[in-house]
Amino acid sequence: MKMFGKTTKLLVATAMLAGLSTASLAKDKVYKWKLATTWGPTLSPFIDAPKNMARLVKEMSNGRLIIRVDASNKHKAAFGILDMVKGGQYDMGHSASYYWKGKDINLLPFTSMPFGMTAPEQYAWFYYGEGMDLMQKAYSKHKVLSFPGGNTGNQMGGWFRKEITSVDDLKGLKMRIPGFAGEIMAKLGLTVTNIAPGELYTSLERGTIDALEWVGPGMDIKMGFHKVAPYYYTGWHEPASELQFLVNKKKFNKLPADLQQILKTAIRVSAYDMYIQNYQMSAKAWSKMVKEYPNIKIKTFPKSVMTAMKKANKDLLVEKTQGKPLLKEILDSQAAFQKKAREWTKMSDYLYLKDNL
Amino acid sequence: MKMFGKTTKLLVATAMLAGLSTASLAKDKVYKWKLATTWGPTLSPFIDAPKNMARLVKEMSNGRLIIRVDASNKHKAAFGILDMVKGGQYDMGHSASYYWKGKDINLLPFTSMPFGMTAPEQYAWFYYGEGMDLMQKAYSKHKVLSFPGGNTGNQMGGWFRKEITSVDDLKGLKMRIPGFAGEIMAKLGLTVTNIAPGELYTSLERGTIDALEWVGPGMDIKMGFHKVAPYYYTGWHEPASELQFLVNKKKFNKLPADLQQILKTAIRVSAYDMYIQNYQMSAKAWSKMVKEYPNIKIKTFPKSVMTAMKKANKDLLVEKTQGKPLLKEILDSQAAFQKKAREWTKMSDYLYLKDNL
Repeated sequence: MKMFGKTTKLLVATAMLAGLSTASLAKDKVYKWKLATTWGPTLSPFIDAPKNMARLVKEMSNGRLIIRVDASNKHKAAFGILDMVKGGQYDMGHSASYYWKGKDINLLPFTSMPFGMTAPEQYAWFYYGEGMDLMQKAYSKHKVLSFPGGNTGNQMGGWFRKEITSVDDLKGLKMRIPGFAGEIMAKLGLTVTNIAPGELYTSLERGTIDALEWVGPGMDIKMGFHKVAPYYYTGWHEPASELQFLVNKKKFNKLPADLQQILKTAIRVSAYDMYIQNYQMSAKAWSKMVKEYPNIKIKTFPKSVMTAMKKANKDLLVEKTQGKPLLKEILDSQAAFQKKAREWTKMSDYLYLKDNL
Repeated sequence: MKMFGKTTKLLVATAMLAGLSTASLAKDKVYKWKLATTWGPTLSPFIDAPKNMARLVKEMSNGRLIIRVDASNKHKAAFGILDMVKGGQYDMGHSASYYWKGKDINLLPFTSMPFGMTAPEQYAWFYYGEGMDLMQKAYSKHKVLSFPGGNTGNQMGGWFRKEITSVDDLKGLKMRIPGFAGEIMAKLGLTVTNIAPGELYTSLERGTIDALEWVGPGMDIKMGFHKVAPYYYTGWHEPASELQFLVNKKKFNKLPADLQQILKTAIRVSAYDMYIQNYQMSAKAWSKMVKEYPNIKIKTFPKSVMTAMKKANKDLLVEKTQGKPLLKEILDSQAAFQKKAREWTKMSDYLYLKDNL
């Protein structure tokens, strides 16, 4: 009976341990995800945001959630990110919301708007204002969750071969400037073209185009535009472009709660980090650029040009929001938030900088 | 023998499961930590940073790391945080590095320096410049790890009962302004006093003091200073005050790798979030304040006063760094970084804001 007694105890112990082990095995389930980005494999800092996010998720989850990051050379669909995440070919994406303005105009404002918010103002709108709710509302019809994915900070207005002293100087110029800003420039009489990144330098050098807009010193330096177009205009059209992480909603809902929080936190911190990384890259690149090419001239568009741009922007917004209640709701929310936040920005950072340049 | 065979199988199964279970139990070990803050239990947004951090850690670790946050009313040692974390009475702390300038002058520069960096500049220095390494170097003798813990953004120069038009107007004024900024003000002829927060309003109302410095609209509004001292001066002395999370190094090293990364990530995101939260609080509070008290006047110190402050600051830094090679190394690193970063700030956010106020 002793033997039998032992066996019974073992059976009970086995059952208990088996129970424990089943729970532990469920908890140890490994999720393997794929993320598609719009960016090439070396496009810092854009590509760094999803890579850092994936590394943090892996380390924090102790290997239970592994996210493979595919650059655009892998999936060959740089601007198909929303569709691929929506369709479930990819679990996640990393791109910029305004690339889909043609598909769904309501997604336009989550990147940046001309004459809009600065980075801290916009993050405040996203996280402590109505931004996140409005973004989920706009993305819900695509069955995709959307999160801020890294900010470029203020983008420069672009490289020009000649100085701009009036609206007339702009008329007839050929410029590469995509998106909503391109539409504004077209209203001012420019011929707006789109050219593949690899051909931009040659086009500018040969005068096929007269100007182009890229990002800022940190990313522009590799492109070499400063060697052929010395007028570097300050920004107006993308004061704080936020990229986006997209997550297939069904896939997200299947994750256990701890992995959901790990993912959300890794996303949030990688987005902030990209903003700061690009700040450092721009500071460093500008210092190098101007040392090697002292001929570069920082210019701000003259008041008459600014006024014309602001008017064109206003007119375009009226056109676009016609019969688009959600777009109007989002833009109104941004405008109201910006008005309040800008007062604070003025009395804090702006007036401080004014005396400390 | 059948019976025996079964028992043997059970024994093996039990051992296997026991092995699995031991690993799983080790992995499921719960760490219970305590964090001491300098702040009272309702001092938003300062107290929110450690609370958010603890919540994220709990959720991401699935309850394996629980951090209890003690406000200052609990441990009664608001300015003893470094000592308590160093001594191991607390595993973590949340405070501001410059509170310990009397104990270790090398810890002063990690909060903010007069005429120093703005928030994005400073985060860039911490995370993509030499900041983090220098901070660990300075804290290593205390056997404590230090991390950025949330930024206030630009702090206002303070509330004054009368307008300041010259350095002479400052002489003899009684002002509550602590720390390094207080030493600068003393050099300009002010009588610098420290008064408990609870008595500040009455002191200012009755004229026991003529001016005081607190934080910015988001935190000042509850104090009510705007009702009794209508001149609100813009900031110069704390352009981006970063709080700090402190972690006892020994305790940190005992955590498994995944919990270490969970802790570091929760710290990093809570710090960024506090900066953005305070931005929103200040924007909102200022809008309310100025509506209810339209008499408030935003003032910038006149150029003569600024020049005198800058000179006093420079002189003080020369005095303080005498024979202090590490302090000098930190301040030199900050100054060099600021010089580069400020050029970028000027051509990006500053020039953008100039045309969009």
